[in-house]
Amino acid sequence: MHNFILKGDICYSTAPTSLEIFEGGYLVCLDGTCAGVFVDLPEQYRDLSVIDCSGQLIVPGLVDLHVHAPQFPFRSLGMDLELICWLNTHTFPEEAKYMDLAYAASAYRAFVDDVRRGPNTRAVIFATRHVPATALLMDLLEASGLVTMVGKVNMDRHAPPDLVEIDAATSLADTRAWLAEVAGRYQRVSPILTPRFIPACSDALMAGLGEIQREFGLPVQSHLSENPAEVDWVMGLRPDAESYGHAYYKNGLFGGSVPTVMAHCVWPSAGEFALMKRQKVWVAHCPQSNTNLASGIAPVRRYLEAEIPVGLGSDVAAGAHTSIFRAMEDAIGASKLYWRLVDSDAAPLTLAEAFYLGTLGGGRFFGAVGSFLPGFEFDALVIDDAVIPGRVGLSIPDRLARVAHLSDARQIRRKFVRGIEIGLE
Amino acid sequence: MHNFILKGDICYSTAPTSLEIFEGGYLVCLDGTCAGVFVDLPEQYRDLSVIDCSGQLIVPGLVDLHVHAPQFPFRSLGMDLELICWLNTHTFPEEAKYMDLAYAASAYRAFVDDVRRGPNTRAVIFATRHVPATALLMDLLEASGLVTMVGKVNMDRHAPPDLVEIDAATSLADTRAWLAEVAGRYQRVSPILTPRFIPACSDALMAGLGEIQREFGLPVQSHLSENPAEVDWVMGLRPDAESYGHAYYKNGLFGGSVPTVMAHCVWPSAGEFALMKRQKVWVAHCPQSNTNLASGIAPVRRYLEAEIPVGLGSDVAAGAHTSIFRAMEDAIGASKLYWRLVDSDAAPLTLAEAFYLGTLGGGRFFGAVGSFLPGFEFDALVIDDAVIPGRVGLSIPDRLARVAHLSDARQIRRKFVRGIEIGLE
Repeated sequence: MHNFILKGDICYSTAPTSLEIFEGGYLVCLDGTCAGVFVDLPEQYRDLSVIDCSGQLIVPGLVDLHVHAPQFPFRSLGMDLELICWLNTHTFPEEAKYMDLAYAASAYRAFVDDVRRGPNTRAVIFATRHVPATALLMDLLEASGLVTMVGKVNMDRHAPPDLVEIDAATSLADTRAWLAEVAGRYQRVSPILTPRFIPACSDALMAGLGEIQREFGLPVQSHLSENPAEVDWVMGLRPDAESYGHAYYKNGLFGGSVPTVMAHCVWPSAGEFALMKRQKVWVAHCPQSNTNLASGIAPVRRYLEAEIPVGLGSDVAAGAHTSIFRAMEDAIGASKLYWRLVDSDAAPLTLAEAFYLGTLGGGRFFGAVGSFLPGFEFDALVIDDAVIPGRVGLSIPDRLARVAHLSDARQIRRKFVRGIEIGLE
Repeated sequence: MHNFILKGDICYSTAPTSLEIFEGGYLVCLDGTCAGVFVDLPEQYRDLSVIDCSGQLIVPGLVDLHVHAPQFPFRSLGMDLELICWLNTHTFPEEAKYMDLAYAASAYRAFVDDVRRGPNTRAVIFATRHVPATALLMDLLEASGLVTMVGKVNMDRHAPPDLVEIDAATSLADTRAWLAEVAGRYQRVSPILTPRFIPACSDALMAGLGEIQREFGLPVQSHLSENPAEVDWVMGLRPDAESYGHAYYKNGLFGGSVPTVMAHCVWPSAGEFALMKRQKVWVAHCPQSNTNLASGIAPVRRYLEAEIPVGLGSDVAAGAHTSIFRAMEDAIGASKLYWRLVDSDAAPLTLAEAFYLGTLGGGRFFGAVGSFLPGFEFDALVIDDAVIPGRVGLSIPDRLARVAHLSDARQIRRKFVRGIEIGLE
């Protein structure tokens, strides 16, 4: 089972600037894993069934390193505010609704359907602080075939009464109850520890989450240095910390042996940057969100130069679009404005680099994901780019550029996750 | 004929910050002109047929103040270069193909079909320097039902031999031949004088175009202060001019009694800004293009404050997307980054302001266009925004935000230009 071959025009990254290209190549899937890409099909695979996608583009599934599932219903609304006002005015009232399981079921179903039909195959997801709704989201995601990490959010301060958790002990007890409830329940969904951000997490809560992390060996996701006013607020709340990131670090929630992904990282201090590098903390670069909330532009070139791992995030609903192709387009654009307006030594991202970020760059957070190298999990998209009006007879990199800028879900013909085909209807 | 009523949720601008809203209102079209918007239908219109679009959004058609029709085939390609290299590497070789009428027919048909199906009802368009292909484009546009201004491009220097015009006299003679050929031929398409930009137009050509402008009373479109290196180049080419804009001005091609639209205006000098204000030169703000070519961010807030007229341009193919909804989204985003990174006194654009720019702001270049005020030409879109997944029961401004960020051509149910319905198939 799950043994087959895709034939078509294959393109994948092996490094930020290395794009591998096989026109009319064979991509072999064995037991949900890539066995390799070949110009001429080796003898040992000649009995496998070939799905002929000749003339279509075959690329790895895209990876969304940062998205808030409960925010999907209000995409594009309230975009006239900065981070903290936007959270208080739009986000927290919406998230409070997920106390109601019927509401959660309807809203989460729309989110999961949208992602399933789009180009993303993997996502690292914030739910809300509610255990039942979070488990429900995980059930829906498992059924979708996507592979995801999902976090029940922890937040015990600086949020409205109908959303905030009563105290650190309650937040921690709910987290343990959630982990117990979902343990062993899924093949494709796994829990990730999710302190919302330092302003929403008391010192006691952060300490307790550090303990849970060590006990369960969970990965961690949170937000970091998104907005200058937010950074100032954190430094006031945590005078013990040398930087925003250091506040996570002090509780053992900032990389090293703990796989950690931090969204945004727009305004790193020198110390925070060095700590991220030392701890190999993942950056979820969310260019559309950083534009929509007027946060700024993250120094992605600096992260790449420092070999700090970086992937892309849609950050719905601060980002309006779930597709990581759109995030590629936005990442390139933001890096060009950063070069022009902020730092002329920081070269703009190329299309190949943005493609890397949206596939292998973020995919590494899931292990061997985001490429077609032998041994990688078989996540693949088949895209009929020829239906996009414009020039024909293009090189594969140029076709990839057209897909990144101009495609939408309608051009996706097939989608595989771990070798299993996903329905696109 | 062309007398009818649209019933639905109506929204239009009357000024940059004034959004008029009628939930379940009646929009009356008489002889292709808006007779008004009413909550209760006045007695005198009760015999007109009502097209019931209840629950759908009705907005003015969008106006693209700057687009290059021949560049449509290579949207999204070559986005790793700045303006001058991009022109030489991608744009000029493509435009040279329009010597071949068969190629032009196929490529222009794809462009016109795309715009016809999208939300734009008006456009100010660059063709190429070729007279037959330009006339062909005008024929296709006339048949589409869109209302457009189209320019045969003038360019007699600094371009490849297969594209550049031999000399100023040839360029001017071709322009006169083109004007003679298309005179009186269209109801919906009109010629606009189109010097490509100062680097491509000799002093003799500019002087001759000034004469043609005075003789024919034509409007003018060109490019202005897009890229710092381009501005430097112009100042070297035209030591007689006090600014880039002043070079146009000296030949009578820069506003005043001459309706003039200049694309980009990213890097105005103080003198150029003052000249634009005095001459009431239109700015075609092209945020996506300015990002894609790493040109920078135009100071739109400053133009609005100075009451310099501004509209939006897609600038295909430096912009990849023809839809002016996308230009609204990009204009807001760019203005936020400008506020954050360049000038904290320049408030970001609101959704209402971006909507104004994409409708009435640019529409004024066509006369009474871009609003539903009485006497305005009846350009209207009916959009079924309810099919976009997400929150329901929203206010009309919030629904407009969802359309600007999340809609595509699929949600457009009907489209009218001057009261005539356009086919969307």
